[in-house]
Amino acid sequence: MKVGYLGPRGTFSHQAAEIYAKGQVAELIPYNTITELILTLNAKDIDEAVVPIENSIEGAVNTTLDMLAWDVDLYIIREVIIPIEQNLMVRHKHKNISRIISHPQAIGQCREFLKKHFPDIPIQYTYSTAQAAAQVASSDEDWAAVASRKAAEEYGLKILYPSIQDNNTNVTRFIVLSHEFGEKAGKSKTSIIFSTENKPGSLYRILQILNLWDINMTRIESRPAKDCLGRYIFFVDIEGHWQDADVRDALTMIKRKTSFFKMLGSYPVEQKE
Amino acid sequence: MKVGYLGPRGTFSHQAAEIYAKGQVAELIPYNTITELILTLNAKDIDEAVVPIENSIEGAVNTTLDMLAWDVDLYIIREVIIPIEQNLMVRHKHKNISRIISHPQAIGQCREFLKKHFPDIPIQYTYSTAQAAAQVASSDEDWAAVASRKAAEEYGLKILYPSIQDNNTNVTRFIVLSHEFGEKAGKSKTSIIFSTENKPGSLYRILQILNLWDINMTRIESRPAKDCLGRYIFFVDIEGHWQDADVRDALTMIKRKTSFFKMLGSYPVEQKE
Repeated sequence: MKVGYLGPRGTFSHQAAEIYAKGQVAELIPYNTITELILTLNAKDIDEAVVPIENSIEGAVNTTLDMLAWDVDLYIIREVIIPIEQNLMVRHKHKNISRIISHPQAIGQCREFLKKHFPDIPIQYTYSTAQAAAQVASSDEDWAAVASRKAAEEYGLKILYPSIQDNNTNVTRFIVLSHEFGEKAGKSKTSIIFSTENKPGSLYRILQILNLWDINMTRIESRPAKDCLGRYIFFVDIEGHWQDADVRDALTMIKRKTSFFKMLGSYPVEQKE
Repeated sequence: MKVGYLGPRGTFSHQAAEIYAKGQVAELIPYNTITELILTLNAKDIDEAVVPIENSIEGAVNTTLDMLAWDVDLYIIREVIIPIEQNLMVRHKHKNISRIISHPQAIGQCREFLKKHFPDIPIQYTYSTAQAAAQVASSDEDWAAVASRKAAEEYGLKILYPSIQDNNTNVTRFIVLSHEFGEKAGKSKTSIIFSTENKPGSLYRILQILNLWDINMTRIESRPAKDCLGRYIFFVDIEGHWQDADVRDALTMIKRKTSFFKMLGSYPVEQKE
């Protein structure tokens, strides 16, 4: 089985993929971007993909949400939640840092630390935290990367400041995507995407349906519908499995009352650590 | 009057600030980051600030939302909506492009174009579209920037591909922030931020309040509450002015039913173009 993840080696996605694949016979394959990874899965060149969808500080991963809504037809079969620890790493200690590089989400997660300790150092964005570490390792400049401990090991960098994220409850939720629905196992949740009709109270009426069937919504995320300002699509997670009678009936009603509806599947609830 | 905007000269924020300040005696001052701009306003070193809050394709500007929620007490007194046209610009035409640089939101707005025409060219992120243009202008490398026509003029670049955004309904909403509530004038909308209690159906009960008073919600945006995954704060815009009896009563009730509530003020509804 081929499982893709957001590479290069040493990313948090890599860590999530290893946790997911433990005990399975799987080849883990890195991809440079979320777009490339999801399109490769959609073309059936790999069997599954592990992608980040949400961080507890920075919020939704927009590329993942938008691609699931508009570009592909894939299903969520598992979620993997891992604690995120960011570290500031360099090639040589005791040198001045001339630039700090990392993925925009990692920079966002360490905003307070960077503002306090390095207010005047320019920041440059990279595609991933591991790419930032690789770039620092291969550069002659006195740059520093914000990345995982695994990335420091992978690229031989020294950690100058460990655990610099603003918030110690920093976790990222990854999802495992597949071509087919997953199997039902234990306590489940179900993810859907919908767009409401452009009328007053239309989101309210959808939430009313969930309330009517006593279904708990564990997450709601809005994204612009892209065709005009003020129109949104919603990414909603609810408790229960799509095969449960109540969930099935509520989803049937939601489908009827929305202008766009997409079912992303049901999967076991991961316990937060 | 001193009005800050997200600089350097030639940004869309600059354009929005000029539209806002037209007919007023105002000194427009550029700031390098949204964080710096909002904190400067909060310290009362300037009188007002023009910041982006939402783009019709890329969605919310997270830094603006998070700072309004957590870091400052400021009010929205106006909104300015401007159409966004992105252009690919270079120093010399007829050269190979070795790198494309711009702000992550601008890159996101041109994702389809870049994927089609420059699938293999590395992308590097900058703090603003205008900074990207300035960097291309001052570099010896064969780089290209994604930025506004105004930025091309400002930094003497040549437009290789005009209007490359994926969607022609691409507009960005800017808000004007101040220390005090604005004056009531014409048709208004009101912006609030709240966090629901961590109980099933709590968002539903807030929307029920708006429904009860027949108040139309024109926008809802969720952001992580940062303390744990699965807790959210909501940014909601409603029609009406906080001095209107119904809006006042509904907001009083919402305040009572939420664990965190912040009023961002009322301001005239800008007509979309």
